Amino acid sequence: MRARRNLALGILVLATSALAARVQDPLPSWNDGAAKKAIVDFVKATTTAGSPLFVPPQERVATFDQDGTLWVEQPIYSQFVYCFDRVPDVVKARPELANVEPFKTVMAQGRAAIAQLSHEDLVKIAMTTLSGMPVDDFRAEVLRWLASARDGRWKRPYTDLTYLPMQEVLQYLRANGYKTYIVTGGGQDFVRAYAEKTYGIPPEQIVGTAIGTAYSYGKDGTPVLTKEPKLILDDNYAGKVEGIDLMIGRRPYAAFGNSTGDQQMLEYTKGGSGARLAMLVLHDDATREYAYGPAQGLPDSKVGTFTQQLYDEAKKAGWVVISMKSDWKRIFAFE
Amino acid sequence: MRARRNLALGILVLATSALAARVQDPLPSWNDGAAKKAIVDFVKATTTAGSPLFVPPQERVATFDQDGTLWVEQPIYSQFVYCFDRVPDVVKARPELANVEPFKTVMAQGRAAIAQLSHEDLVKIAMTTLSGMPVDDFRAEVLRWLASARDGRWKRPYTDLTYLPMQEVLQYLRANGYKTYIVTGGGQDFVRAYAEKTYGIPPEQIVGTAIGTAYSYGKDGTPVLTKEPKLILDDNYAGKVEGIDLMIGRRPYAAFGNSTGDQQMLEYTKGGSGARLAMLVLHDDATREYAYGPAQGLPDSKVGTFTQQLYDEAKKAGWVVISMKSDWKRIFAFE
Repeated sequence: MRARRNLALGILVLATSALAARVQDPLPSWNDGAAKKAIVDFVKATTTAGSPLFVPPQERVATFDQDGTLWVEQPIYSQFVYCFDRVPDVVKARPELANVEPFKTVMAQGRAAIAQLSHEDLVKIAMTTLSGMPVDDFRAEVLRWLASARDGRWKRPYTDLTYLPMQEVLQYLRANGYKTYIVTGGGQDFVRAYAEKTYGIPPEQIVGTAIGTAYSYGKDGTPVLTKEPKLILDDNYAGKVEGIDLMIGRRPYAAFGNSTGDQQMLEYTKGGSGARLAMLVLHDDATREYAYGPAQGLPDSKVGTFTQQLYDEAKKAGWVVISMKSDWKRIFAFE
Repeated sequence: MRARRNLALGILVLATSALAARVQDPLPSWNDGAAKKAIVDFVKATTTAGSPLFVPPQERVATFDQDGTLWVEQPIYSQFVYCFDRVPDVVKARPELANVEPFKTVMAQGRAAIAQLSHEDLVKIAMTTLSGMPVDDFRAEVLRWLASARDGRWKRPYTDLTYLPMQEVLQYLRANGYKTYIVTGGGQDFVRAYAEKTYGIPPEQIVGTAIGTAYSYGKDGTPVLTKEPKLILDDNYAGKVEGIDLMIGRRPYAAFGNSTGDQQMLEYTKGGSGARLAMLVLHDDATREYAYGPAQGLPDSKVGTFTQQLYDEAKKAGWVVISMKSDWKRIFAFE
């Protein structure tokens, strides 16, 4: 009788401590190491009452780049795939584009044309395919596309390809009173279409490359807001800091990126007083994801340029580099 | 003994019901009437679980014009007074402006010059006095000015001149899960400097006329963000709808304004499905505040144009006009 009671008690103790360990670790997909420790230390220092580095709740802002920081960006940003997939519809509506470059090439080769187009061509395709429709229609259209589009490697919806360790960081920061923002070079409206469901981040906390809108009236007199091919904010490099000031109006306490396009956002974040956290994801895991850089001798790539110079600045300035290979126990939720 | 107990009980009952009445009325500075009823009915319809017009908490967005809607805008927007007061400092830093109009006139006449300047002159003064400094310095400077500046009529800080009934609406909506935003034709950075303390509205919920910033490095290498005389968003008329889409990315469920500059915001708000509330403050109280319009035969004015056409559209479209004179029991907290 006593033995049985002791056994039951033992099982209970074991179960409870396993549960406690799980409850106590807010970042279970992270291996122990400098990166994980930096995040936990930062949160404790800025949110523990009485800490000399305590940050009032209303000032707790954390910003995240998206492509390559929160989800896969290889072989090309998924938004560009969306734009390419939309070209036939746009050409159908505006037949005069069929014989104009770069649309002609895209009509002939589809997604395969991506590799050979210049940055200017890509911008032209983005501007044309992302404008001309009411904003509500655009968001519905992006959701339709996301529901059926699959990436080439994992054959999964793009929204499955978010990094589980980063989702844990988002949740951990929010659980500690931080407002989490995406600050992306990608299209603001594109990301807003799915970010609430995918990351738990509402539209008003998405800062991205933004084009203008035009206000007019439909046939029945109801107001219509139409996307216009006019750039309002180029949310890359210094543009990320300008976007943060324009849309948030507060300097972040934590910022996460993975490329030279995030450098100014991290500098600006670390430039504030008190505890500030700046982190860079290094894609050094060719097996489980991709390895590109070219920091630390990784191959160069069309997207997410992480130069050796950026790596050196990070080390010098006290930014923390996250090695995907060694810091992340698990990369995707579906694994 | 029993009589004493009954008396005590009677007092308790009276005190409790007085307290209950106070607790139950979220808008004590409003007189009973169509305007107050419209606000309370809207909140109940959109926030009561099971209501056919229920709005999920994350979609509860309410937008407020500032000048003339949340605080006094006569005889001129206080931001213009700020700009005029800054002209001597700007001319000291840039002596070449001393002999250039409109700066020459302002140097000679001070605030008195406001009445005779054109809209273009005012914009020129605003652009020049609101740019050229780091964003942090600008906000500190606005707070310094607000601490000492007094309006001409009540001899009080401008931030004392907010309308108590509207402060109650802000609090009532927030208590019911609404995110309250200011969407102002005034300068976004100017309003951000004081809005958190004055209205309980944080910087990231202020949408206003915005100028660009430039990112650079100070002598010690730290990043500096400087305000540039380059217009990013003209947050008036249709610009308010564009600003809402750019910064919030959701259509408001409730919108409050007081002039033709708010017309499109109210149209856009009412254009959504479900319960939508659109309200306009009519300044018809010459005794307690000001009476100007020219709706309903009120005198025309340099600011806050409320035309008869807007009044008629409001009545036709189901927008609710708030009569300051009859709907507001009390206008200022200091009264």
